[in-house]
Amino acid sequence: MQFLSDNAAPVHPRLWDAMRAADSADTPYDTDALSRELDARFTAMFGRECAALWVATGTAANCLALATMVDPHGGVVCHEEAHVEMDECGAPGFYLHGAKLLLASGEGAKLTPETIGDVLSGITRGVHQVPAQAISITQASEYGLCYRPEELAAIGALAREHGLGLHIDGARFGNAAAHLGVSPAEAAGPADALSFGFVKNGGMGAEAVILFDTEKAEMLRFRRKRAGHLQSKGRFLAAQIHAMLDDDLWLENARAANAAAAIIADAAGDRLIHPAQINELFVAMNADERAALRAQGFSFYDWDDSSIRLVTSWATDHDHADALSKAIASL
Amino acid sequence: MQFLSDNAAPVHPRLWDAMRAADSADTPYDTDALSRELDARFTAMFGRECAALWVATGTAANCLALATMVDPHGGVVCHEEAHVEMDECGAPGFYLHGAKLLLASGEGAKLTPETIGDVLSGITRGVHQVPAQAISITQASEYGLCYRPEELAAIGALAREHGLGLHIDGARFGNAAAHLGVSPAEAAGPADALSFGFVKNGGMGAEAVILFDTEKAEMLRFRRKRAGHLQSKGRFLAAQIHAMLDDDLWLENARAANAAAAIIADAAGDRLIHPAQINELFVAMNADERAALRAQGFSFYDWDDSSIRLVTSWATDHDHADALSKAIASL
Amino acid sequence: MQFLSDNAAPVHPRLWDAMRAADSADTPYDTDALSRELDARFTAMFGRECAALWVATGTAANCLALATMVDPHGGVVCHEEAHVEMDECGAPGFYLHGAKLLLASGEGAKLTPETIGDVLSGITRGVHQVPAQAISITQASEYGLCYRPEELAAIGALAREHGLGLHIDGARFGNAAAHLGVSPAEAAGPADALSFGFVKNGGMGAEAVILFDTEKAEMLRFRRKRAGHLQSKGRFLAAQIHAMLDDDLWLENARAANAAAAIIADAAGDRLIHPAQINELFVAMNADERAALRAQGFSFYDWDDSSIRLVTSWATDHDHADALSKAIASL
Amino acid sequence: MQFLSDNAAPVHPRLWDAMRAADSADTPYDTDALSRELDARFTAMFGRECAALWVATGTAANCLALATMVDPHGGVVCHEEAHVEMDECGAPGFYLHGAKLLLASGEGAKLTPETIGDVLSGITRGVHQVPAQAISITQASEYGLCYRPEELAAIGALAREHGLGLHIDGARFGNAAAHLGVSPAEAAGPADALSFGFVKNGGMGAEAVILFDTEKAEMLRFRRKRAGHLQSKGRFLAAQIHAMLDDDLWLENARAANAAAAIIADAAGDRLIHPAQINELFVAMNADERAALRAQGFSFYDWDDSSIRLVTSWATDHDHADALSKAIASL
Repeated sequence: MQFLSDNAAPVHPRLWDAMRAADSADTPYDTDALSRELDARFTAMFGRECAALWVATGTAANCLALATMVDPHGGVVCHEEAHVEMDECGAPGFYLHGAKLLLASGEGAKLTPETIGDVLSGITRGVHQVPAQAISITQASEYGLCYRPEELAAIGALAREHGLGLHIDGARFGNAAAHLGVSPAEAAGPADALSFGFVKNGGMGAEAVILFDTEKAEMLRFRRKRAGHLQSKGRFLAAQIHAMLDDDLWLENARAANAAAAIIADAAGDRLIHPAQINELFVAMNADERAALRAQGFSFYDWDDSSIRLVTSWATDHDHADALSKAIASL
Repeated sequence: MQFLSDNAAPVHPRLWDAMRAADSADTPYDTDALSRELDARFTAMFGRECAALWVATGTAANCLALATMVDPHGGVVCHEEAHVEMDECGAPGFYLHGAKLLLASGEGAKLTPETIGDVLSGITRGVHQVPAQAISITQASEYGLCYRPEELAAIGALAREHGLGLHIDGARFGNAAAHLGVSPAEAAGPADALSFGFVKNGGMGAEAVILFDTEKAEMLRFRRKRAGHLQSKGRFLAAQIHAMLDDDLWLENARAANAAAAIIADAAGDRLIHPAQINELFVAMNADERAALRAQGFSFYDWDDSSIRLVTSWATDHDHADALSKAIASL
Repeated sequence: MQFLSDNAAPVHPRLWDAMRAADSADTPYDTDALSRELDARFTAMFGRECAALWVATGTAANCLALATMVDPHGGVVCHEEAHVEMDECGAPGFYLHGAKLLLASGEGAKLTPETIGDVLSGITRGVHQVPAQAISITQASEYGLCYRPEELAAIGALAREHGLGLHIDGARFGNAAAHLGVSPAEAAGPADALSFGFVKNGGMGAEAVILFDTEKAEMLRFRRKRAGHLQSKGRFLAAQIHAMLDDDLWLENARAANAAAAIIADAAGDRLIHPAQINELFVAMNADERAALRAQGFSFYDWDDSSIRLVTSWATDHDHADALSKAIASL
Repeated sequence: MQFLSDNAAPVHPRLWDAMRAADSADTPYDTDALSRELDARFTAMFGRECAALWVATGTAANCLALATMVDPHGGVVCHEEAHVEMDECGAPGFYLHGAKLLLASGEGAKLTPETIGDVLSGITRGVHQVPAQAISITQASEYGLCYRPEELAAIGALAREHGLGLHIDGARFGNAAAHLGVSPAEAAGPADALSFGFVKNGGMGAEAVILFDTEKAEMLRFRRKRAGHLQSKGRFLAAQIHAMLDDDLWLENARAANAAAAIIADAAGDRLIHPAQINELFVAMNADERAALRAQGFSFYDWDDSSIRLVTSWATDHDHADALSKAIASL
């Protein structure tokens, strides 16, 4: 009974079907029909003009998106616990050619205009400091918390005021939109670029970089190729994404994952370190309790000395979630 | 009837089966059993210790392999028509942080000790010039020509003499080994690193970087992650590679592609600009002739004003090859 | 009466003389006799084999030195208020090709084995995190505090234990050695590389990068050229450095600067935020008091809302220091 | 009797005076009055708005200038024998973060609209190739040949047509203007950026990057700092440049160097491989002849097996030039 992560869950059957259906096509890279339809597909979804490019990983999506906004001598304001800072092995430094992550604080790994402003107001010494050129936030955050539309609007206003780009790392964007009960456009707010994640939501190896500033699309296409991310048989990535969008499978999967987490969250109660919003839970638990759960067949990640992380996915068996709930309740 | 490239051909059925079989595994990145077995698998294949890492593209494979050999201030001797120079949008400059490609000549896009030596002997001005640190050759070359084992040995000896790493871009390594009728170890010769291509040979999106200098493997793992090429569900890439190696499917596919090309090569006769060795043919043809072929339903790539490129794949229908042969013979 | 910084003070007369004496030499870059003697000169000074290269700035010295220790995918542990982090406009990201500064804390901007260890012990997640490859400390620190030999030894032992390089930013290395009353070798401790600063100590535009790991010297020479720091008339930089070493002018100048600061420190008394060791003082002072000092003709840098920074140099007129002392005492 | 290069010649006395006069100033970096006056000074000289920044070397000047025009994924068309390609140890790869030099041919190391056009017309394969973003030419070229105003205009027109920046490497810009007998503005033509060299013309260690596209100046200031080229005592670089401009010392020095070369060129006659225009001569000469000259005390650089390079400077003794002329005539 696996609650380690959603990033290794099985691929949804409808994606398998879509990939098989794309097998016989024979135009390489992103010249196939499926890839060429992505811009229009996301433009319809978001209600504003988009350029949409597939890549295989969230790290590539985030870094390529940021590379459209930030010079090598520039900086990106992000949370001190953001994935780009903590978990990407310096990929932003590689893709942005040494640009700097400017770390801000914020409860639950969420930035606020105030914490962003604190970083910006510390940049006063001219060429001796890196100038901020973008803000990157995570929807939902590393602790599973969502930015509500009005929060996004406030950050967007700050970004515009300072001439900064706004990027959203949406590794779990579907889960966020599902929790918020808003449209994708509302969940993206005034972002200039969005890494729309599908791998954690039932995909095999396809994420979408969505550029709302479509003038940057040409640059992004060069950068993707240059990073070795322009796959020869890109139709299989495009096929996954189309299948995800068909009949809102992305939303259905995200809701299923959130629902499984909600079952466990009820049982966790006061043990929850952050409000339960999506499919990630951070639960206070001592070593003996962890051992007890593991002895019953549950696997999960030790977050720190006093807490664990539980993650559900689109494929989580609700019986497993029930079992875990009971096990936690019985601790 | 498509002879444009092998890089968009369908995925071999045995790879589909292998990927489906890997679906239920649930460990992320390269921690799954299939990924962990790759080192041993290639070690057995090559008869010397290997580290083997999957990546999605040949560009990433080449550049990551070279990054284990070359400092940012160093240089790589390669052919002036090599893929790394011509077709990767500057990816070596990105992955090697500005290192320089040092261009050598050579008939049929093959390097020789003499043409490599010409480059090396021009490096005499100390810190004012980029020092060579590696040689990269392509097996088979951009014009479909193979390095025989004794040619590889001679280049390897030169590399050792000058303290240079030796990398092989093996985008069509299988086709080369099939043509040469030698083992993979013989087709790789004394290489320190090999980009073993599968995408053009029936794969979906998996190539293997093989390091024979296994001390570099740790560095390569970091670099792969940092480049956004460590896919969450890496088991699907590993599954493709294992299926390719099972019962030498890679060799079977390569032979099929080569055989289809041989049918056409017979008909092309004196029109062949380079000897026909693998699944790529360069055929002299004027504009009227091209139009005539296209009118009959054949698609292919215009190489230059006086020649076309024809590429077959594992999936090329031999009836199509026969038809093209007849059409060429009738010109 | 200027106490803004030591980095714009006049050039010492003996350096002018040395530069004029070098005018007629006519070999370019670092092929002149003065440049070629630097290795031997510093080897004698430090009592262990050194390679010594001139560069024009401390930023270049620090970053080039670190580039000999750190891969593009690696990290450097440094203090969160270190010059490389705060004041170099992301130069380490540029010179190290995106490598990451791993920020540690420590009183008075000094690292300790404990605070370094805290950073290192947080690196546990394999390729998802940047591996530490070097430690960079500042002798004297950004707050003017010196590492005593036993402190250096402890940090060096930690570095060796973890296989990390040890770099010292010695922008005010002379002032540190003067305060500590130890030899340069003792003030450098077990460092692998030292940025030995002269510009703040009476130089015009010459710092020395000292490599105690001389095998890295060849790489450093290439990197210096590649960064555009191999000046054509390098003899003028070498001449400055030789003049600084002749009769220990570096020490004489550093002592003069420290002595001028000591005069002021006596007057500042309890206002001192950090112990007064070298030629930098951080002095608690409110806005009215600052205005009062400025009205009397003293110029200095506002450190933050409640303190100022006072810096003396080799050329500070002790009458000015006396005047400032009295002014502070009268506040 | 030294004809090796102009890059190690003595510093002109008026520059020494200017530097000494700047000694007592005390504002760091480029905040001093001399540095702040550079923009206006060059604006007056060129008759159009300029931003002018000092750096210590031509390599830094060239690369920083190009960095204002070229993305990391872009390319610079330059001559295959240009200094940026041949003699800067890959510095453009470093400063431009892996951008590519796109090599063009041209007699006497001069580009023409035709040879540039050949490179541009070969860029047809979309994201698989590096897009050209700038042209860099050298005034005078590596072989000492000058671009006349109408040649510059033609290249400028091509640049504008293709949306490319135009950079001039003016390491010997003064010598070119002196030969052409035109104003600096005419010698720079429609360039967007100029590396105006002074080091080879009597300077110590100061070149000027002139941006005619002044919107890029802010970026350039950050890049200069980030590259470690913002010297603390920048006033000494600014002082050199002002002294060079005072009473057109740059032109006087360039004329003197050109005149010394002209003396030798007369004697060299048919041996000249390229027309003698500035202070560099390429002279056919066999091994015995070289030995004979060296035996008479002349030092120079062996260009290749059949020719030597002779370079004069502002300080070349015309008696030495006469002596060399006679020696060559007597061969």
